[in-house]
Amino acid sequence: MITDRERAAFEAGIKLGALYHQWVGAPVSVATAESLERAIGESVGLQPAVEQVKVSLDRDLMSPNAFGYSEVAGLMFDVELITRVGKARCTATLSRMEDYPLMSLVACDEAPPGSRHR
Amino acid sequence: MITDRERAAFEAGIKLGALYHQWVGAPVSVATAESLERAIGESVGLQPAVEQVKVSLDRDLMSPNAFGYSEVAGLMFDVELITRVGKARCTATLSRMEDYPLMSLVACDEAPPGSRHR
Amino acid sequence: MITDRERAAFEAGIKLGALYHQWVGAPVSVATAESLERAIGESVGLQPAVEQVKVSLDRDLMSPNAFGYSEVAGLMFDVELITRVGKARCTATLSRMEDYPLMSLVACDEAPPGSRHR
Amino acid sequence: MITDRERAAFEAGIKLGALYHQWVGAPVSVATAESLERAIGESVGLQPAVEQVKVSLDRDLMSPNAFGYSEVAGLMFDVELITRVGKARCTATLSRMEDYPLMSLVACDEAPPGSRHR
Repeated sequence: MITDRERAAFEAGIKLGALYHQWVGAPVSVATAESLERAIGESVGLQPAVEQVKVSLDRDLMSPNAFGYSEVAGLMFDVELITRVGKARCTATLSRMEDYPLMSLVACDEAPPGSRHR
Repeated sequence: MITDRERAAFEAGIKLGALYHQWVGAPVSVATAESLERAIGESVGLQPAVEQVKVSLDRDLMSPNAFGYSEVAGLMFDVELITRVGKARCTATLSRMEDYPLMSLVACDEAPPGSRHR
Repeated sequence: MITDRERAAFEAGIKLGALYHQWVGAPVSVATAESLERAIGESVGLQPAVEQVKVSLDRDLMSPNAFGYSEVAGLMFDVELITRVGKARCTATLSRMEDYPLMSLVACDEAPPGSRHR
Repeated sequence: MITDRERAAFEAGIKLGALYHQWVGAPVSVATAESLERAIGESVGLQPAVEQVKVSLDRDLMSPNAFGYSEVAGLMFDVELITRVGKARCTATLSRMEDYPLMSLVACDEAPPGSRHR
């Protein structure tokens, strides 16, 4: 049997994997980073089980190429995501760990019976 | 020898091919289409030789799936792009032709010597 | 505390989300489907926690466009994936459910102490 | 009026832009590079106006991350592409120029009347 926490963890993984491979490679610069962050956040927020998502792109990594812009790289992402299935909720992140864009399952919890889960 | 018009045509092709394959598949809905259009437009505008770009996504094709959202499909795109290399300028479009998302080179021109090209 | 089963579920989600958004939109035809399936399978197999992956693309959905080819669509995927974290193992699938490309967590199990997990 | 050479240049641009943004980000290693090169080549070869395409990925840039694999980066590409429209043919390349993955229109020619263009 699969628990709601496991399902919420699965959903969190889907969103982070999808986000990464959808947006990596998009042309970006310090001037356009904000519109891209917003578009990514709104896009991820449409998907099932997403309760909250925060996306920010590290401007310090947007060093301009010969033509004055950069491209979204995995290391630029700083994402925090909360998914929910039934009463279970998981928090997951995508953020730089040295030279690897690490996806981490940070916490899972389940509201006890009778409690009010926000 | 390669002409500036040919180079501008090449640059226009690059941008349309890139745009298509970068953004197809992104979750979208009528509510989020505008932020995505804006992000795409700003992103394309960063690339070399782009003088102007207009991006719109056909809301009529955003029929909600079982979870209430849709995904960017090639047929949703209505894009007009102007590239410039030297004095040559090309206009290209990506738009639906029946069931194919067609990329077309619409016009190329070169400012005559002595004229002022905006 | 997060269990190994939850971590394995999270990893399975990452792989399915990544796979989907990496490969959707790639030109494909009945003649080239096999090389693409192989490339996808080998690519996914490189990622952490993947124990096994099977990828097949539904040829019946590859109806040729005006130029004789098709594009990878979410509905074409039939993927079965096994991830492993510690002694926990999860099986997940991506497959068509009516008109939605559904990602499902099918099973999670954990080897009992003392048993030999292949 | 648009010439066939300009159209062939436009088509070449489309293919390089598409290829780049479709495949960047895919997990890859020295062990799987060949299957990926083959899949990319076959995929690009399906598209209109493509007469020939050669794709190679620079193994020297595939330095393994903490989990032993790498990801397709723009700088890894070495692509040569020939497109044809009518009697016109263009050769274009995607290859590393210092730290930029440069797309170049290398040559365009048109068969003289009466000649046989392969």
